[in-house]
Amino acid sequence: MATTSSLVPRVKLFGVPYSVCTSRVIMCLLEKQVEYDLQLVDIVTTQDHKKSEFLKLQPFGMIPILQDKDFSIFESRAIIRYIARKHEGQGTPLYGTSNKDKAMVDQWMEVEAQNYNPAIAPAVWNLVHAPLFGQHGDPVVANASIEKLEKVLDVYEGVLSQSKYLAGDFFSLADLSHLPFNHYLIHEGKRGDIFDKRPHVNAWWKSISSRPTWKKHLSVAFPGKKFD
Amino acid sequence: MATTSSLVPRVKLFGVPYSVCTSRVIMCLLEKQVEYDLQLVDIVTTQDHKKSEFLKLQPFGMIPILQDKDFSIFESRAIIRYIARKHEGQGTPLYGTSNKDKAMVDQWMEVEAQNYNPAIAPAVWNLVHAPLFGQHGDPVVANASIEKLEKVLDVYEGVLSQSKYLAGDFFSLADLSHLPFNHYLIHEGKRGDIFDKRPHVNAWWKSISSRPTWKKHLSVAFPGKKFD
Repeated sequence: MATTSSLVPRVKLFGVPYSVCTSRVIMCLLEKQVEYDLQLVDIVTTQDHKKSEFLKLQPFGMIPILQDKDFSIFESRAIIRYIARKHEGQGTPLYGTSNKDKAMVDQWMEVEAQNYNPAIAPAVWNLVHAPLFGQHGDPVVANASIEKLEKVLDVYEGVLSQSKYLAGDFFSLADLSHLPFNHYLIHEGKRGDIFDKRPHVNAWWKSISSRPTWKKHLSVAFPGKKFD
Repeated sequence: MATTSSLVPRVKLFGVPYSVCTSRVIMCLLEKQVEYDLQLVDIVTTQDHKKSEFLKLQPFGMIPILQDKDFSIFESRAIIRYIARKHEGQGTPLYGTSNKDKAMVDQWMEVEAQNYNPAIAPAVWNLVHAPLFGQHGDPVVANASIEKLEKVLDVYEGVLSQSKYLAGDFFSLADLSHLPFNHYLIHEGKRGDIFDKRPHVNAWWKSISSRPTWKKHLSVAFPGKKFD
């Protein structure tokens, strides 16, 4: 997304495109048609997110951070709310159009953060990321994680039989927040079966993962790879 | 808070006043001067939150739920955002007054949800609640939990040396979200020492816990008890 000249100061995103939390923010920026510069942070070799300059902006030493001129904000779910509010009339209405819409978006973002995320994260770590970092993935932990996730997806199946997306009939911050972990579990962890067997969850996944913004993000995050 | 007659339909809150998540919502309603009726849910004996009528409103079977006429919403952090937005010009401006204020409130609410809550919850369970439910609290788990929490409080100490409250110089949804667990750890778990030894955290705790709304809530949730 970076170009060398721009008349309007662009927001700056500190992160890495393959990170779950950075991806969440990138998807929001793309859907809201906000131009940005991605400032890569080396979180593996030199661990720049643990250095003092970074800790001044993010005291817990985690990515991503968004800088909008002199305003700096961290925590991906806070960042995407900020972007959606600031650019309310531009791009996709990711926070809906009424207070009740926003309430439903917040409700399902909280479900994502409190129910879905803790359930899926250990599965993705043990099936996908641990081996990449030279660690041994534990299949018992992965299976327990999948079991928890299936219970969450059972609830989603009921909700998505009533509305096209989680917060209603509009694509929102809540839906896009699920894209990165879903992607890893399905395409790298090879556990698409738990989505396939739930028809409404499956239709939702097909719908949100076929958005041009997500395809564009994947082509930048994983150049040359195909995910069909 | 319940009275038998009211010309304006009041919101209905399903929960129990001693629950951490219900308390968070009650504090928000009191600060925003929104009248409400508390509908007690038996989560111990008859476990009404696991019954089908309740699951229609909250498919994960958890308290609290807020009903505002025909609109129903769950997840405490979503509920308090909804109340703060709906009653923006009434009571305490808990979500601030600008998009940047809201961004900082969201940022610290996410820190509460993602860093503070997972750190403190096992300590409160093992020191306070497990024994109440006839279970054995594990001191090793409690200590590991306190250790994690101290790292979070170290970050808070730095932030609160720069501003009176977490999101800036205004009392917000982020601050009030910390009241219930802080209360249990300090007054029932007897671990006020980790707050006392951090002067800015301590001043913050003294300030937020001395709010008349919190004192009023405690007098209803724990009638006859003194917490000084």
